[in-house]
Formats: sequence, structure tokens, C-alpha cells
Amino acid sequence: MTTTVDARTSAAFDLGPARALSCRECGHQIPLAAEFACSECFGPLEVAYDFGPVRREDIEAGPKSIWRYRNLLPVPTDVQSHPNTEPGLTRLVKADRLAAALGVRSLWVKDDTGNPTHSFKDRVVAVALAAARQLGFKVLACPSTGNLANAVAAAAARAGWESVVLIPSSLEQAKILTTAVYDGALIAVEGNYDDVNRLATQLAAEHEDWAFVNVNVRPYYAEGSKTLAYEVAEQLGWRLPDQIVVPVASGSQLTKVDKGFRELGELGLVDATPYRVFGAQATGCSPVATAYKGGTDVVTPVRPDTIARSLAIGAPADGPYVLDTVRRTGGAVEDVTDEEVVEGIRLLARTEGIFAETAGGVTVATAKKLIETGQLDPDADTVLLITGDGLKTLDAVSDRIGPKAVVPPNAAAVTEALGL
Amino acid sequence: MTTTVDARTSAAFDLGPARALSCRECGHQIPLAAEFACSECFGPLEVAYDFGPVRREDIEAGPKSIWRYRNLLPVPTDVQSHPNTEPGLTRLVKADRLAAALGVRSLWVKDDTGNPTHSFKDRVVAVALAAARQLGFKVLACPSTGNLANAVAAAAARAGWESVVLIPSSLEQAKILTTAVYDGALIAVEGNYDDVNRLATQLAAEHEDWAFVNVNVRPYYAEGSKTLAYEVAEQLGWRLPDQIVVPVASGSQLTKVDKGFRELGELGLVDATPYRVFGAQATGCSPVATAYKGGTDVVTPVRPDTIARSLAIGAPADGPYVLDTVRRTGGAVEDVTDEEVVEGIRLLARTEGIFAETAGGVTVATAKKLIETGQLDPDADTVLLITGDGLKTLDAVSDRIGPKAVVPPNAAAVTEALGL
Repeated sequence: MTTTVDARTSAAFDLGPARALSCRECGHQIPLAAEFACSECFGPLEVAYDFGPVRREDIEAGPKSIWRYRNLLPVPTDVQSHPNTEPGLTRLVKADRLAAALGVRSLWVKDDTGNPTHSFKDRVVAVALAAARQLGFKVLACPSTGNLANAVAAAAARAGWESVVLIPSSLEQAKILTTAVYDGALIAVEGNYDDVNRLATQLAAEHEDWAFVNVNVRPYYAEGSKTLAYEVAEQLGWRLPDQIVVPVASGSQLTKVDKGFRELGELGLVDATPYRVFGAQATGCSPVATAYKGGTDVVTPVRPDTIARSLAIGAPADGPYVLDTVRRTGGAVEDVTDEEVVEGIRLLARTEGIFAETAGGVTVATAKKLIETGQLDPDADTVLLITGDGLKTLDAVSDRIGPKAVVPPNAAAVTEALGL
Repeated sequence: MTTTVDARTSAAFDLGPARALSCRECGHQIPLAAEFACSECFGPLEVAYDFGPVRREDIEAGPKSIWRYRNLLPVPTDVQSHPNTEPGLTRLVKADRLAAALGVRSLWVKDDTGNPTHSFKDRVVAVALAAARQLGFKVLACPSTGNLANAVAAAAARAGWESVVLIPSSLEQAKILTTAVYDGALIAVEGNYDDVNRLATQLAAEHEDWAFVNVNVRPYYAEGSKTLAYEVAEQLGWRLPDQIVVPVASGSQLTKVDKGFRELGELGLVDATPYRVFGAQATGCSPVATAYKGGTDVVTPVRPDTIARSLAIGAPADGPYVLDTVRRTGGAVEDVTDEEVVEGIRLLARTEGIFAETAGGVTVATAKKLIETGQLDPDADTVLLITGDGLKTLDAVSDRIGPKAVVPPNAAAVTEALGL
């Protein structure tokens, strides 16, 4: 059931080209608001747009951040005039040495470790903050175990907003520090991530001016992920890659890459050439890969057990949409063991000088497996998304690497240690 | 004594606009080569240029990295066709909340944490690698205790070069991992940093195809620091700031910021407006600040004792040139205690969402002190250089910050903890 949106109601919020929220299940539309579930069928809501003309040259002349794409996002036209982080326009690295190692012809790595807090979460949080400001929220909040906590606390600090970040009290000290330093309200909850998540939903209902980025403003937040697709296309010289490999946690990032590519084609910013989208999971948390391989539409929740903690969502909200996307585009979802994840991190580091977190190891190792099993075309232009930084997951590699040698302070000892 | 350079000899190497090496003490010039000390007086050599016409629009149309300034650097015209990291074009953040906290009118933070290995060292290493390739070197090397080791190992990996990185064997595990992951020859030396440094000089003399970036190719390497000045000016809309605060380790970065600003003025890329350059040190390693305050030209070496380890050079090679620069431009050198360094890190994080390493804390705290003591003009446009990432120096803040509260998993407990 589709309802005509009252333009005057939506116009109450300046969210740029965004015109309504649309249910991904039943198509029911509602005016722009701080809603995330369909009132008709409880399906997830997504932002629908009424794009004006968008030209390559206007984007290219724009800011060197995701705000160059502001006319494709649910943010006000003057988004840059409000303090926010300026993530995006991270490097797209032509990865010839990794390509040679994997046996593919042409390969690029999108390196999102260059963002303000060193993960793709800065993109979604920046969009969430911009939308939340328009929607009348006053506090930026999230439940998180890592990258999202960093991004929310940093963006709120920059904006001068209060933040409330909920973490499990068992979280490692390093991850606590990298959020606590921004001096928001970091609350350690005696419980696991599921407890923290439930608590966030409850608090979102009780505090009407708290924007939990991944709960009550999730439809806006998720749109930030489209910017990775836009940047890849622009940095390739305004064209779509043939294939892209995306890590899957909730699955939102993968579906938004697809949405971004489609929008660019529909707007005439690129030729709408075919592309295949591949999902990457760790075997220890691979419910979407399991469903894909089983030929089913049903994603059965699992209890995560993997070093790739930033991907460890056992009941991924967008799992079914990931399956739709990869099947429609001719892609696949594959998974790799923790051992392979570590090898993936090391392979990327030694060939391209990029140190990724465990999620990046999942992406690289999955690409390798997809090539070896003939699922990725080795002759097609391929992009890998590296969404986070190895500095945040040092534990994953700490027992595998170290100095080549320990020597006394003389030149002969160094030469001997190097076998020269 | 000045010697005319034989153009044919220098032309043996394509290093773009670089035309000679010139002694900073006696002015003696030699053709471009892998030399770092003057054969006449043992003074340090610096790259001299013969710039062609350079236009703003060509720079703006160039790569989104330091290579947009390739016509101002000692690198070949086709520098982009060789694999290297692509550092630079990091954010220049308008820091209104920090400005308010410090009591200055208009303030910007140049955030170099966005570089590939998250420090400004990626800039100098990328230039060193590009020059070293032209000069016939085959191995990229350095002695280091941190940021430089990361940058050299990563750049060599990306280029497919061997690397040799020498570190003191007592280095913390985290710093070992962030270099070792790139899989070069990381050698732990039983000794302190002085031992490691001496060993590097000895090895550079013995292995003619090893480019120790900060030893035998130092003149080229150091030029990479000019790119911070170029970017600040371009990002301000092609103008120079009135004041800039730069952390001082060897002092090279500060002198190259001055060189970069001067070049932009001489080339007509900006109006040659006056600017003042300020140096920032930690009190526990403040030989240049001590000399500045003492009104002397002589920098007396000290034994470093500060948490700002990336600035802990007790005998800074460019100390006298720092004194020249700050006195000529009307700046100053100031120093701050470790306690103030930590407060500086926290102040920047909570006002702007930028988590800097200890060197960044030195810069922010020094700016604060310079303002309080009337040395920085609170009404003039001011830029602070943040050269490295807080993720690498977590220890500095680990005993000061943490969760606001630890609570049971219910909403009332959260609300109560927040005092609501």
C-alpha cells in the first residue's frame, strides 16, 4: 500500500532531496520523521528522494568530503555550515601488487582508514548527525562495541552536542579509551552487546531528543553508506566497477553500495553498466553466507564466534536484502576462517602498505576465495572495500608477527641477520 | 663559497624542478646526488630548485594527494606512475569550539592523522622513496621508534621494495606490530635510540643501495614537509595564515613550513603576506625553547624525559634554523609539561573530535600557553599542525579517562548515572 506524501509535512524538515520514508517491505510511505519501522507492516523504512538535476562538475567542484554528494543525501543544502566531521573522499588505491598476488587483472582498494576516526562509520554518523539536527534531536547516541562508538563520540564533540555511548562493560581498555577521550557520556553496561542494544531501543523510546544513530534515525544514518559507492565511481573516472566485494555485518553497507550505483546510473552520472556485488563474512559469524549457499531467503541467526568483531552480528537486519542484491547482480556471499582473516590482513599490508582491521582481512581473504573458486572474474575490474583500521584490532595479529631478528648494536650483526 | 652547478650532471637524475644540493651553512652547491653533508664545511645540504611557472589551477586539477605539488618537490614529473603511498590533502578543520576554549578569533587545525599510516611522516617518506628511486637506491630504510618506522615499512611494501627498519629492542609491543605487519626486515637492536641511529649511519655507508630516508637521502626526505605549508595555504583559499604553531623534534618540519610559505609567495601563488612561525616542545625535551628563551643561538643537547616520545630528540639537528625562523618571522618557541600535554590532547578531542598523539597535545597546549602569555595574537588567523594519531599513544591518556559510569542493564540506571 502506497500513501501519497503531503509535501507540506515533509517540507517541515530541510533534508535536501529526501522526500519521504518508504517501507522496504510494503512500499507504504510516510513524511520525513524520526521513524524507523513501518506503521503498516513493521518493515524497515528507507529514505526516498526526489532528486533534482545533479551534474558531475558540481560534485567535482564541491568539498573534498562526502558533502560533495549532499544533493544525493538526506541532509540540508547548507550542511557544511553546521559543525560536523568531514569524512570521505578517502583513497582509491590501484592495487597492482595485491592483484598479482590474487591473480586478477585490475584491482582497486577503497581505503576508508583515512576517515576522521579511521572507519567507514564516520560517513554514516556524519549523515545521521546532520539529519538529527534537522529533526530536532539534541543528543547523539548509540550502542556499540567499537568503530561506531568512536565515530559518534567524535562527531558529537565536534558539533558541541552531548553524546551517550553504551558499551558492554567487558570491552577492552583500548576501545574504551578511544571513545572516552572525546569526553561524552560513555556508559559501561553490565551485560553483553545484546543487552546493550535492547537498552538503547528502550532509551530511544523514553528520551525523545536522543538520536540513537543506528536505532531511531537509522534510515538517515544508513544512507551515509551510499557515499562509498559514489566515491568509487567518481574515482574510477565516473564509471562503475564490474565487481565489488563488501564486508557484511548488518548487511546495510552492501545494500547501500548497490543503491548508490543504481542512483548514479539513473541520474546519468555514469553509464548504467552491469556490476556484481559480493558479500564477505567470517565463518564464525556467517548467517548470510550460509543462507546464500543454501539457496534460501531465510537468514537463520547464529551466535558469533570470530576475531572479526566489527562484523559479529548474529542476526543481521539487512540479511535478506543482501541476498536479494547479490542474486540480482550475479554476485555471491562467501565466508572465511579466522586463520584466513589474519592472512588477509597480512597480504594486504605486505603488498599495498595498508593495515586493515579484521573486517578488511575478511574482505581480502574472501576475495581470494571467490577468485580461487571461480566466483569472481579475474579479468574484470574489481574493487575491495576496506572499512576499518588495523590499529584498532592489533590483538588479531599480535601472536603472528614481530621483528625478524634481535641483534647487538653493530652493523655486522644486522647484515648477518638479513642473510647478506 | 658558491660553485656553479653543471646542468648536465644534475640532469642525470629526473627530480623535477630540483637543480642542486646547496649547503645551508656556506652556500656551496653540488649536483643532485645521494649526499647529505657539505664537502666544504660539513653543513647540512638542502635541495635548491629552478621552478618553472606553477599555476593554482594546475595544482587544483592535480591528484588529491601531495603529488598535486610535484612541480615544487624533488620528484620526477611522472611520480604518480610509480607505486608509492599517496599521502596528503588531509583535512584543514575550522576549529571554532577549540578557538572559543582558547580565546582566539579564528583557528584551524591541520589534521594529519588522515594520512595512510596516520602521521605526517607519510609525506616525507613518499618524497624520499620517489627521490631514492631516481637516485638508484633499491632498499628503503630508517632508524625509528614509531611513526617513521610505520611510514617506511608501509611505503616500501606498496612499492615492492625491501625495507630495513631498525628499532630499539625495548620498544612497546604495539609499535612493533604496526611496523612488522608490513613484512619488511624489522630489526630490533639491543640498545637505545642513539645506538640505533649510529648503526643506521654506519649501515648507510656500507650499503650503497640502501636509502636511509632520514640519513643519506635526508635532503630530499625533508622537502616532503613543505607540503603541509602548501596545503594549509591552498585550503585557506590560497593565502597564508597570520600565525602557525608547529611541533619541534629535529626542527625540520618547522623550517620547511617556512620554506613552503616563502616559495608560494615568491611564485605568486599567494600574496606574500607576513606570517609568524611558533615552535612547540615538551618541557622534558625542550632544548630549542630553552635557547629561544635564553636569547642564544646555541642549542644545548638534553637527555629527553617526556611522554611526547615522537618529539624526544635531545640534540635537534635543525634547532639553530628553528631559532632563525621564529626570530625572523616574529614567532617564538614555547614548551609545556607532560601534564599540559595530556590536557592538550583531551581539549582537542572534546572540542573538535580529533584524537591526536602526544605531539598534538604539545601543539595544542603550547598554543594555549602562547595565548595566555600574550605571544600569540588572539585576533589573528591561526593554524595548529596536528602531526600524528592518538591511537598510537594510548598510554598517555590511559590513566586519566574511562567510562562515566558502570551500570546494570536497565534504562533507569543509565538515566540516574547521567543525573537526569
